[in-house]
Amino acid sequence: MTYHALDSKSVIDYLRNRSALQEILPNCDSLVAKEVGDGNLNLVFIVENPNDPSQAVVLKQALPYLRVAGDSWPLTRERMRFETQALLKHNELAPGLAPQVYDFDEDMSLVVMEYLRHHEIMRKPLVERQKFPCFVDHISTFMARSLFFTSDLYLSGVDKKELQAKFINPHLCKIQEDFVFTNPYMDSPENNWNPEIDAEVQAVRANCELKLALAEMKADYMTSGQALIHSDLHTGSIMVNENDTRVIDPEFAFYGPMGFDVGAVLENLVLNHLSHYAHTPDPDERAAYQAYLLEIVRDIWKEFARKFEEIWIGNNQGELMPSKYWEFPEGEQTFAEFRRRYIQNILHDTAGHGGAKMLRRMMGIVSIWDITSIEDLKKRAKCERLAIKIGSRWILERGSINSVDDLVGIVKEETKGA
Amino acid sequence: MTYHALDSKSVIDYLRNRSALQEILPNCDSLVAKEVGDGNLNLVFIVENPNDPSQAVVLKQALPYLRVAGDSWPLTRERMRFETQALLKHNELAPGLAPQVYDFDEDMSLVVMEYLRHHEIMRKPLVERQKFPCFVDHISTFMARSLFFTSDLYLSGVDKKELQAKFINPHLCKIQEDFVFTNPYMDSPENNWNPEIDAEVQAVRANCELKLALAEMKADYMTSGQALIHSDLHTGSIMVNENDTRVIDPEFAFYGPMGFDVGAVLENLVLNHLSHYAHTPDPDERAAYQAYLLEIVRDIWKEFARKFEEIWIGNNQGELMPSKYWEFPEGEQTFAEFRRRYIQNILHDTAGHGGAKMLRRMMGIVSIWDITSIEDLKKRAKCERLAIKIGSRWILERGSINSVDDLVGIVKEETKGA
Repeated sequence: MTYHALDSKSVIDYLRNRSALQEILPNCDSLVAKEVGDGNLNLVFIVENPNDPSQAVVLKQALPYLRVAGDSWPLTRERMRFETQALLKHNELAPGLAPQVYDFDEDMSLVVMEYLRHHEIMRKPLVERQKFPCFVDHISTFMARSLFFTSDLYLSGVDKKELQAKFINPHLCKIQEDFVFTNPYMDSPENNWNPEIDAEVQAVRANCELKLALAEMKADYMTSGQALIHSDLHTGSIMVNENDTRVIDPEFAFYGPMGFDVGAVLENLVLNHLSHYAHTPDPDERAAYQAYLLEIVRDIWKEFARKFEEIWIGNNQGELMPSKYWEFPEGEQTFAEFRRRYIQNILHDTAGHGGAKMLRRMMGIVSIWDITSIEDLKKRAKCERLAIKIGSRWILERGSINSVDDLVGIVKEETKGA
Repeated sequence: MTYHALDSKSVIDYLRNRSALQEILPNCDSLVAKEVGDGNLNLVFIVENPNDPSQAVVLKQALPYLRVAGDSWPLTRERMRFETQALLKHNELAPGLAPQVYDFDEDMSLVVMEYLRHHEIMRKPLVERQKFPCFVDHISTFMARSLFFTSDLYLSGVDKKELQAKFINPHLCKIQEDFVFTNPYMDSPENNWNPEIDAEVQAVRANCELKLALAEMKADYMTSGQALIHSDLHTGSIMVNENDTRVIDPEFAFYGPMGFDVGAVLENLVLNHLSHYAHTPDPDERAAYQAYLLEIVRDIWKEFARKFEEIWIGNNQGELMPSKYWEFPEGEQTFAEFRRRYIQNILHDTAGHGGAKMLRRMMGIVSIWDITSIEDLKKRAKCERLAIKIGSRWILERGSINSVDDLVGIVKEETKGA
């Protein structure tokens, strides 16, 4: 079928003709579709049978341009292949933590997947001070497993490179290269920031040490092929409820630095934490929820690191390094030290990439709803100034971050008395 | 044509039917071929018309196994595609510093190229204490241009990744992963070392700090996609004469760390330097030639670094970072500092990878003719012990190497009074 963008009518006819979907959608005549995309790159339809909630799917179709910039920013539709491949990989490696895939149509650049009726995107409930008792466990498992099992620590060198070849993803990488590491820190027409923090934004753009550090983090993002990373793992890419967590939207997936994913999760929680200076006026309520957020930041890292190392010890069959390499009198301790340094480096990268992503949200094209939803620009500026301070320190101090307590400590120091 | 290994007869009939070669080989009836391969992976034929030296080519054909290990180590013949692609890229980026390519046949896994009648492989003349007045200039140009122009410093992110995709080279990488970074440092049946240095070899294999550092260098080799590197740039891959230098055999080429190439050149010169303790008994002759070798080690790095930065300043159009990023009050100095740190990091990697390659030559499957040609095992052991000391220090001290004088200084300290 030649590519054409679907609408809420044509999507039903399209689904009718897909043999892979006959089991999940046996009765197409009763289906109703609505377009719900709030992303920038795609059409997203929920299609369901109002009489039978089990008959429901989500169809996601790539648009040939970046929606937020009109059709002036052309993008290859090939990204839907990356998303589908990554969803299948995530289902394989972290079962139950990504939506199921029912169908994929490369010509039409679309994927049909599980409709997560009982989940919601994580941002809004975090602004509403909801708690998710399983989230730490789920997201740390997702990251530990998806990163470890696609890395040289588990795969043979040949298998890793064959998988890496399927995920060479230049056009989506370019979006992150531009919008995380470059354009927010220079004059660029699409940049967007709160006029109240203009002085702080201009100071970042002229800060020599920060600019150097950001360039170094960009080099790391562009060259460090450690694992198949999600590469857009913010709280808008996570759907949750009390019992369940699903990571969605992995179209940016490629072989990159592990710390980019871990950093994305942690910095989004920190930005949400800051947003409560405006969203939660009651100081006790605010302090309690902020403490909860910092606790899960700490616990996510700790559980991630613990699981990552535990999986490593139990599955040390990768190219880096075979068990036999560690067979010498002090080999066991030396292997333990190798693991310690490796995981320590992920923490340094988590700080650097998390900090970069925090900064870009304050002054680039991609803002963050948790904070932009604060209507009073002065109140919003308070959160943003703190974010700039914390993000800058995460980046600049990344090499001397020895534990997640150092990362959280920076948040606490900068928000003291705020 | 179905793949079959050629011999010195069938190669002539093969060439007769290649239309691309009619200009260079107009008269196939007069051609004579001889197989001259001393490598481990390939057949190499020199084919020439004895009556007309201008009618001459080299034909290199991949064997489907690693020759040195019998046919028990199967290898994909696809490597000839990597070699041809890399030769074409090197001719484009560093004209005159690689052999010209006349023809490529993917089915037959062979490439036909310029016959370098007036060049010789660099190892032997270095043992004979020959000097090559153009070598520093040529090899530093080759490295600066082939590395810079394939990196993110010059290419757009999209172009770099498209080139990287063509050079995903899992099977040849696996050879270096095994034989540079892993097997020499553990029990492995193919390892081979001088029994006189058994104690030193076993000490390396049980040295915690070295094993850690080697694992870290392997991680860098496997994940750091900085530039299209040659990845086997020892003095056996360099053909020279008084006026001319050609880099051959780039079948290992892939996107890896720049320091792996620079380190290979420098460590091979250091190992040759050490070999003169046996090859050159006259102390004055020896001292003079050893001083020459350390001088070119220093000059190669200095010229490489100078040219690399000069090309960078003149061609700052890559993804990392656009000139506009550096447009702020102290931007010029900050960009200069970014270049300084970037090149400093290449020097650290040069030390680490050069040191690893020095060590593996002493205790792995791949030895080094400069030293193994010393028949007296005790004299040979003297050189090898020094190589192990110097290689170990290059690796362990890599993070604090501030200039090439530090690298050369380690050689001088360890050989003092030798």
